[in-house]
Amino acid sequence: MRTQVGIVGAGPAGLMLAQILHLQGIDSVLIERASQEHVRSRLRAGVLEQGTVEMMREFGVGERVMKVGLRQRAIDFRFNGESHPIDFESVCGRNTWVYPQHEVVSDLMAARERSGLPVVYDAPVSRIEGLDGGRPVIHYERDGEPLRLECDYVAGCDGFRGISRSWIPADRLKVYDRIYPFGWLGILADAKPAIQDITWGCHEDGFAMMSIRSPTVTRLYLQCEPDENPDDWPDDRIWAELHKRLDVPGLPRLEEGRITQKGVTAMRSFLAEPMQYGRLFLAGDAAHIVPPTGAKGLNSALADVKVLARALTEQYRNENGQWLERYSDICLKRMWLVQRFSSGLCTMTHQFRGDEPFVRRLQRADLEYMTMHAPGRLEFSENFTGLPVEA
Amino acid sequence: MRTQVGIVGAGPAGLMLAQILHLQGIDSVLIERASQEHVRSRLRAGVLEQGTVEMMREFGVGERVMKVGLRQRAIDFRFNGESHPIDFESVCGRNTWVYPQHEVVSDLMAARERSGLPVVYDAPVSRIEGLDGGRPVIHYERDGEPLRLECDYVAGCDGFRGISRSWIPADRLKVYDRIYPFGWLGILADAKPAIQDITWGCHEDGFAMMSIRSPTVTRLYLQCEPDENPDDWPDDRIWAELHKRLDVPGLPRLEEGRITQKGVTAMRSFLAEPMQYGRLFLAGDAAHIVPPTGAKGLNSALADVKVLARALTEQYRNENGQWLERYSDICLKRMWLVQRFSSGLCTMTHQFRGDEPFVRRLQRADLEYMTMHAPGRLEFSENFTGLPVEA
Repeated sequence: MRTQVGIVGAGPAGLMLAQILHLQGIDSVLIERASQEHVRSRLRAGVLEQGTVEMMREFGVGERVMKVGLRQRAIDFRFNGESHPIDFESVCGRNTWVYPQHEVVSDLMAARERSGLPVVYDAPVSRIEGLDGGRPVIHYERDGEPLRLECDYVAGCDGFRGISRSWIPADRLKVYDRIYPFGWLGILADAKPAIQDITWGCHEDGFAMMSIRSPTVTRLYLQCEPDENPDDWPDDRIWAELHKRLDVPGLPRLEEGRITQKGVTAMRSFLAEPMQYGRLFLAGDAAHIVPPTGAKGLNSALADVKVLARALTEQYRNENGQWLERYSDICLKRMWLVQRFSSGLCTMTHQFRGDEPFVRRLQRADLEYMTMHAPGRLEFSENFTGLPVEA
Repeated sequence: MRTQVGIVGAGPAGLMLAQILHLQGIDSVLIERASQEHVRSRLRAGVLEQGTVEMMREFGVGERVMKVGLRQRAIDFRFNGESHPIDFESVCGRNTWVYPQHEVVSDLMAARERSGLPVVYDAPVSRIEGLDGGRPVIHYERDGEPLRLECDYVAGCDGFRGISRSWIPADRLKVYDRIYPFGWLGILADAKPAIQDITWGCHEDGFAMMSIRSPTVTRLYLQCEPDENPDDWPDDRIWAELHKRLDVPGLPRLEEGRITQKGVTAMRSFLAEPMQYGRLFLAGDAAHIVPPTGAKGLNSALADVKVLARALTEQYRNENGQWLERYSDICLKRMWLVQRFSSGLCTMTHQFRGDEPFVRRLQRADLEYMTMHAPGRLEFSENFTGLPVEA
């Protein structure tokens, strides 16, 4: 097979790239290791930056998010027994939307089907060759048969554990990594969200979060051990801990309901730079991951894709290679600010065992400054609703 | 002897308190362990917040600072080989002044002399009794003779190593403490400051700072080991390190000159709460110290004093004791934000040995956000020029 842009990985980054390229008249083929069903049903992040929603609309996949996405104009930070909401719409005039990642994927799959262009599922990539020559070849397998995709450029959109990044020579790659000493126990409950705003409990016993998934379903998280066994958390323990960390006097108590899903997420910051090598360009989790605190994983992946699509368009339409050359620099400039925000929020809102009293008290001063002083509210709002993308 | 307010310590906090009380018609006596000459010649901080200067003017000791103080409207942060000034005057409409602490002390001593009220020098305090009754007594010595000062209230303005704090029962006091793994090698040089703005070098080999002391004298600091021996720093090593950390292409190089003073300062954050017990009220370093990065030591002491003077005035003039009751709460609310700013700036600008590459890179992202993004510039400017004092 032969195409212009070979895309490894058909998650939201790969699918969105394919969609934009298609609208620009650039051919692509998506090669995905997993089955379509598996990709479609992966549960991930659920908060979209305003720029992400604008991007979906601009590229023809924004209809459903506008119809069923839940506009979020505030986050309620709870600490010290009090509620401290930041209404980012009034602070910076921008918003976020609650719209789960699998819905984004579903919209993008439908768009890909409409385009009539191929997605090859169940097709693990074994190697990529020719990245520093003029004609890369992606070698993959389907039903045990070795196949090849020739292309001009390779987009590595295959996530943190994907194969793309490994084709950048180790001596060209600088890796930054931080593993946090805690995880999130995430649950989905058939319960009416107590309030519409996303609520963060920054409690001395650990972080907790409540987010609306739908008017009858609540998404909840609890800071836990990184290797926590979810079976150690019977329902009553979960609810007791959630009430303690999230409820404050004078506001509706958390509503309880049947717990339909339970799982533990690890927390990590990771970045590999540069995000390109020869004709390979990494986007999203393939190049960087963040702790989920700032809801930046999906949004950052789509920000990369916007830059990459612009760069490939400049190359194919105008024979202007400058954008491709600068791709990594453009993405990383924004991404380090996103890493800073995600890691900073994670550090500010979670409990680190062994922290001295001074550090714990400063953490509360940080929360106070962020929620009650104008520059802090502005910084949070501008970052949470999404920094601009240079593309 | 007998007075209304007994003040332990005749540094800037004690002297300023005495001055304000005098203007309000409230009597005080200052008891100081050291000699007047020793107090007058102690070299300390040199940057005054706008509110500090306004306070000096309001209470009749602002004439000289307005005449010879050097208005500072910006700090130039240098990192990554580039200059990133924050012009706080244009960001938040406020300023700071370079005016050394010994000049403030000198102005306050002159005011005290004009008032004709006593300062007892060379008089170490041995104990304070009756703090939880109605009539405290300060026991001190002069020329080997035990003496006593009876008073209504005691102001503990005797610094971090003073005796006042020790009269608050240990089980009433919560102490927060952090010792940083580095110090500052400070030098004074007969050299023309390269630029008028205070310059901070945030270099991967460590922090450095250049500040104007006068048009012909430069104050310089280098991050060093906490137990550094200044003799290990011959002049050429000092200048080489200063050039490396402070000079950037395209701007005037640091001017060298004769080094007239050399010393090492430790870096520590400390806070004891509450700041009051019975009839004792702590102000300044007696209750809290900060690393010198934000130049907040003297300014915070005078902010405490402003609150305490207001509280004592309400008590004596209006028989309103509410301000005295709330003294510690009012001061600590502001002080934790000051601790946060001082510690945050210190962490952002210094090198911590053993930090992972991720943490080092985030540190640069923090500097980038602070100097190049509006909320960061606003946060720095508002904090550096001084948060408001509730009094």
